[in-house]
Amino acid sequence: MRVSLLGPKGTFSEEAANKFFKQKKIVYKEEIHDIFNDVLNENSKFGVVPIENSLEGPVGITLDLFLKFDLKIYSEIILDIKHNMLGIKNTNLEDIKEITSHPQALAQCKKFIKNAGFTTKNCLSTADAAKNIFLAGDDTIAAIGSITTAKIYNLIVLEESIQDEDFNQTRFIILSKQDNIQTGADKTSVIFTLPDKPGALYDALGSFVKERINLVKIESRPSRKGLGDYIFFVDFLGHRHDQRVKNGLKSLKNKVTYIKLLGSYPSLKPD
Amino acid sequence: MRVSLLGPKGTFSEEAANKFFKQKKIVYKEEIHDIFNDVLNENSKFGVVPIENSLEGPVGITLDLFLKFDLKIYSEIILDIKHNMLGIKNTNLEDIKEITSHPQALAQCKKFIKNAGFTTKNCLSTADAAKNIFLAGDDTIAAIGSITTAKIYNLIVLEESIQDEDFNQTRFIILSKQDNIQTGADKTSVIFTLPDKPGALYDALGSFVKERINLVKIESRPSRKGLGDYIFFVDFLGHRHDQRVKNGLKSLKNKVTYIKLLGSYPSLKPD
Repeated sequence: MRVSLLGPKGTFSEEAANKFFKQKKIVYKEEIHDIFNDVLNENSKFGVVPIENSLEGPVGITLDLFLKFDLKIYSEIILDIKHNMLGIKNTNLEDIKEITSHPQALAQCKKFIKNAGFTTKNCLSTADAAKNIFLAGDDTIAAIGSITTAKIYNLIVLEESIQDEDFNQTRFIILSKQDNIQTGADKTSVIFTLPDKPGALYDALGSFVKERINLVKIESRPSRKGLGDYIFFVDFLGHRHDQRVKNGLKSLKNKVTYIKLLGSYPSLKPD
Repeated sequence: MRVSLLGPKGTFSEEAANKFFKQKKIVYKEEIHDIFNDVLNENSKFGVVPIENSLEGPVGITLDLFLKFDLKIYSEIILDIKHNMLGIKNTNLEDIKEITSHPQALAQCKKFIKNAGFTTKNCLSTADAAKNIFLAGDDTIAAIGSITTAKIYNLIVLEESIQDEDFNQTRFIILSKQDNIQTGADKTSVIFTLPDKPGALYDALGSFVKERINLVKIESRPSRKGLGDYIFFVDFLGHRHDQRVKNGLKSLKNKVTYIKLLGSYPSLKPD
């Protein structure tokens, strides 16, 4: 069973996949877009992509790609994230001038980087950053990544746990062509846009309230058409085969200008 | 009259300030946090900070700082953003390996950078990137910035208008210790958190609907406490001295666990 995720070897996406899949063949991809493509073209049965971080919020690119690709959410995986400052062997902490990682990892260590006065450079993933400094053999540049990543690329840990807040979790989702079966403790994700009139969001949310459906997440993203034009991403409890959810979605359809069901899947507790 | 904004000379923040203030003394700051500090400590009467971009969405750091600082919104400024690829004189386009700018500018030119295969490096502002390549005299690295910035730092335009979408606007706000007077066409901004119970957002929005108050923006940001715990940022039409707004806010206060009024100010049309 092939699973596409952000590579190279040693990313947090791979750790998330290891948590969920016992047996699998991992296909490493450079960009989130390529993972959506792999699942759509059936090069892989599943894809694992980050969707939300407790410090930085939504992963915008993942949300945007759901508009372009007709794929479903099969499951979610929640991973504790600990960032460390990694260097090649024999690096002296005081020689470090620059720090490199994925933009989200850099953002999650903002305070640490600011205090240290490092310049920052973007990489495609935390593991990509680790791999780059290992290949370059440069002892003036550090990477941000996990202890697992350090081991894979033969790096030393210069400083442990450098993220701004101790509590740092990332939620990953498993992409598939189909969503999941009813388990009795499920979650459903939906995207919609609203007519430009007063009370439109209130009316839309009313569809859930009437059926006593509990919203667990609401995100608004700019539609890329202009300031003030939003796409809403909503997660709520229940499976799309539940009668209450069926009623709620039927009512919601009459109140939106566009709607796309991303599917139903087992609900994990975030804590 | 002192106005603090992101420097160095030639940033989009400075262009925004030039659009609003006729006479002023500009105080250049390195970070958005320093601008909030300047206004709070009365080093400057006003601060100009970006709050939202039509492609990339909210500027998270600005939203987060409103939780920490008791400052108000005095006005808003909407600026059309055109990004260009800038280099030092006599640069050959084919020698460029890396591109440097503010993370938001890099994100707004994602497709162009991907197609060209450049590595990316973060700077504190678009003008900072331009200044850095000018000072380094390096013809293998390009900056992203405006035509104005190119002129200030004696750079040439290697490629014009490289942003992913033609329509690209950034909304800036003017920070102050006081908000603005009633003009009859005003907007009010408010932050709140909700109790953890079904229908809480619906109930909160009901306070606006009952008074026929038109919401123009809703953003949810993670509270940094955990996944699924959100702070809401809402903009609606009307001034806090309007009777309907007074009623709406009074009702809202009973439905939230925390509320902070960011003030009322003249409403600009986004288009």
